[in-house]
Amino acid sequence: MADSPNCDLKSLSPLQLFERVTEQGEKVRALKAGKAPKDEIDAAVRMLLSLKLSYKTTTGQDYQAGLPPKDLVLINNGTAKEEDEDLVDPWNVQTSNAKGVDYDKLIVRFGSSKIDTDLINRLERAIGQKPHHFLRRGIFFSHRDMDQVLDAYENKKPFYLYTGRGPSSQAMHVGHLIPFMFTKWLQEVFDVPLVIQLTDDEKYLWKDMTIEKAYEYAKENAKDIIACGFDVNKTFIFSDLDYLGTSAGFYRNIVKVQKHVTFNQVKGIFGFTDSDCIGKISFPAIQAAPSFSSSFPQIFNGKENIQCLIPCAIDQDPYFRMTRDVAPRIGQPKPALLHSVFFPALQGAQTKMSASDPNSSIFLTDTPKQIKTKINKHAFSGGRDTIEEHRKYGGNCDVDVSFMYLTFFLEDDDRLEQLKQAYTSGELLTGELKKVLIETMQPLVAAHQERRKQVTDEIVKQFMTPRKLAFEF
Amino acid sequence: MADSPNCDLKSLSPLQLFERVTEQGEKVRALKAGKAPKDEIDAAVRMLLSLKLSYKTTTGQDYQAGLPPKDLVLINNGTAKEEDEDLVDPWNVQTSNAKGVDYDKLIVRFGSSKIDTDLINRLERAIGQKPHHFLRRGIFFSHRDMDQVLDAYENKKPFYLYTGRGPSSQAMHVGHLIPFMFTKWLQEVFDVPLVIQLTDDEKYLWKDMTIEKAYEYAKENAKDIIACGFDVNKTFIFSDLDYLGTSAGFYRNIVKVQKHVTFNQVKGIFGFTDSDCIGKISFPAIQAAPSFSSSFPQIFNGKENIQCLIPCAIDQDPYFRMTRDVAPRIGQPKPALLHSVFFPALQGAQTKMSASDPNSSIFLTDTPKQIKTKINKHAFSGGRDTIEEHRKYGGNCDVDVSFMYLTFFLEDDDRLEQLKQAYTSGELLTGELKKVLIETMQPLVAAHQERRKQVTDEIVKQFMTPRKLAFEF
Repeated sequence: MADSPNCDLKSLSPLQLFERVTEQGEKVRALKAGKAPKDEIDAAVRMLLSLKLSYKTTTGQDYQAGLPPKDLVLINNGTAKEEDEDLVDPWNVQTSNAKGVDYDKLIVRFGSSKIDTDLINRLERAIGQKPHHFLRRGIFFSHRDMDQVLDAYENKKPFYLYTGRGPSSQAMHVGHLIPFMFTKWLQEVFDVPLVIQLTDDEKYLWKDMTIEKAYEYAKENAKDIIACGFDVNKTFIFSDLDYLGTSAGFYRNIVKVQKHVTFNQVKGIFGFTDSDCIGKISFPAIQAAPSFSSSFPQIFNGKENIQCLIPCAIDQDPYFRMTRDVAPRIGQPKPALLHSVFFPALQGAQTKMSASDPNSSIFLTDTPKQIKTKINKHAFSGGRDTIEEHRKYGGNCDVDVSFMYLTFFLEDDDRLEQLKQAYTSGELLTGELKKVLIETMQPLVAAHQERRKQVTDEIVKQFMTPRKLAFEF
Repeated sequence: MADSPNCDLKSLSPLQLFERVTEQGEKVRALKAGKAPKDEIDAAVRMLLSLKLSYKTTTGQDYQAGLPPKDLVLINNGTAKEEDEDLVDPWNVQTSNAKGVDYDKLIVRFGSSKIDTDLINRLERAIGQKPHHFLRRGIFFSHRDMDQVLDAYENKKPFYLYTGRGPSSQAMHVGHLIPFMFTKWLQEVFDVPLVIQLTDDEKYLWKDMTIEKAYEYAKENAKDIIACGFDVNKTFIFSDLDYLGTSAGFYRNIVKVQKHVTFNQVKGIFGFTDSDCIGKISFPAIQAAPSFSSSFPQIFNGKENIQCLIPCAIDQDPYFRMTRDVAPRIGQPKPALLHSVFFPALQGAQTKMSASDPNSSIFLTDTPKQIKTKINKHAFSGGRDTIEEHRKYGGNCDVDVSFMYLTFFLEDDDRLEQLKQAYTSGELLTGELKKVLIETMQPLVAAHQERRKQVTDEIVKQFMTPRKLAFEF
């Protein structure tokens, strides 16, 4: 770092400025503790004040020790996490609360904004139709700059959607469909291009898996994604292993991001250590780069300034906080975000579903019988221990996994409300609620399987070929 | 790191094993110093012995504290460097000795092998002609596994050449030509494919430079390289910024290397710190990947096991020590290497030439007059202070830069020997030696400029287009 604090402060991000103020504060304390000469302490204090001023000018906030700038709050990994805090990062979701993660706290910690009634109403006016039940029911509960996306839409300015998946296994579960179901709806109501990243390189780096296997999973997963009903003329699905070797625009954005993020920063954001491989350390740039339209010159005609909107589960937010921090420094717009809650495991909402535990999830390959058995056997119940007690005190929908699943997959608002009342009052028994869920999931999964059968290798190839989409830029 | 030392030791590289033994040794010392319970100390000692045994089994060497395994010796960056050691890494070359870097010491420190008379004689027999004067005069002085390359050649097995350049500016100096002149000779005598990497991404990451500028320099530098006389049918020149977005094989090898190198390792090898950007930290994999033939499926028909030989200046060795450490773990052959000494600055051999100081070098764009002025004005002389003293005691060729330059560029062995004797005896004066150098360099640079003029953008494009070369694999 340079000796003079002012020479290059303008090029620093809020987070880097925050780190410089913190460092300088420590230096002042050390000088004072070490009884350094007065003029040396004075010089260090002057530098500290100057840094704090730059911080305030840049962020509009006063510097507060230990509180990184809003919109850039770090995830406290491992040791730094407070006792009662939920653990949420791209690789772990854990909470001690049976209701699941405390999302209001997460919004404060991550520095994002709640999707409130005002925003939902504005969206409804803009698109002229009822918002998706994922929005109405708070399944997508948090956002960054969604107002700007609506501004763009209302002013007929283009934007595009970006979402993705890490292909860690061949089998996807119903929870994996949530971002894709929602993204499909967004694409239909806004009529915009969509890019879907399959991070097979990430899975190769993190898992004990060959490159060939990771790539194979990417193509298998693409079939399940396509089976959600995306329009091939408006959607580009890509494997990193493929597309990085196909697009000079993509790699240039990656290397730009990599120049503007330090190891200190990814250590703070993702909890990497010195023992991690350099592939993991530099990977966040690869997930960041599709947020910039110039990564897809074939779609956007090389245009650099097209707004991106990313629907994703909240655990992916660290990648995009980093991306939003870097964007202005490489002359790109910050991507906007819509965050979903986690899909709970059958065993309870303390953790999200995992593709590696077959009983934690309903898989897209499960038979009707398997679905029935899994729900009956493993779905955590909010009901009472005996029928008598249940009739008397009623069940608890807040912790009942069958009810939670229905909020995701039962579209009929009235029916859901009836079920909630009947279960809470004790009128509806656990077995009966599970039956409703089984009858909801069986046809849903069967229909998915039917659509997936239609997805040939040829269709996958079409989706995964870099090409112009049905939009002009 | 795992608690049990044996569970995964087989997958560790010699360097990783070395680090584990060192760590465990420190643990034992800490336990003893802290007067830990006897059984705890005993357990730690048992683990240490077991790790030392694994180290010996893997490397064939006894563990010695502070001495990393041969072939993997780290460069001691910055603080770790001993008082009288030369500083040599990809970004710095410095010595306090006017004769230049002590290359014999460097061979020991880097764990490479000296190019001795036996090897030169064997090469001469294999190719049936006199070896290049760079070999005869010790300008290429060190190697790794050159015997294996000759084995392959004698057994009619294929190999290929890989060299490169970091395009840090438009202007190249005569020192930059050394590896290319030598590589061209190697290609001609062995008749093998050659790939030349232009690390424009590296220059963007390290310098205050736009991506566009770095790419422009890459294409300009390609012209000077092509002007050395390479055969377009046997040579592929690539910019990383271009080729990474063109070849899935290249990216796959990069990500494989990135999975098998930790931040700890690149910190040890290259001296990176936590404040370095993640682009720098992961870059070594990008310089490593062209050592594997599968990075060029269009040339090698997708074949993975073709031996690579890398002629380069010794300061690039850290990249390839790392590459050789990783290679067997990703199922690839280790690249062989031929190392050159550094080309000295006009001001003296304490440091290598720098493209950023116009007076430190003879540039390929210099006019005959500029060449004359620079040599007369700046070339450090090993002559005496007065003509009388010079006549009496003679000059010192070991520190005289004009003489050093002649060892690089004057091909006539007899003439060079005559000049040496005349200068050492005092018969030849400094001004006369400089005149010989001027008369050698002026036509050499002029001829280069003439050839460079013939290199059109179209020709550059041909060299830089990924394609099959004139070889069957």
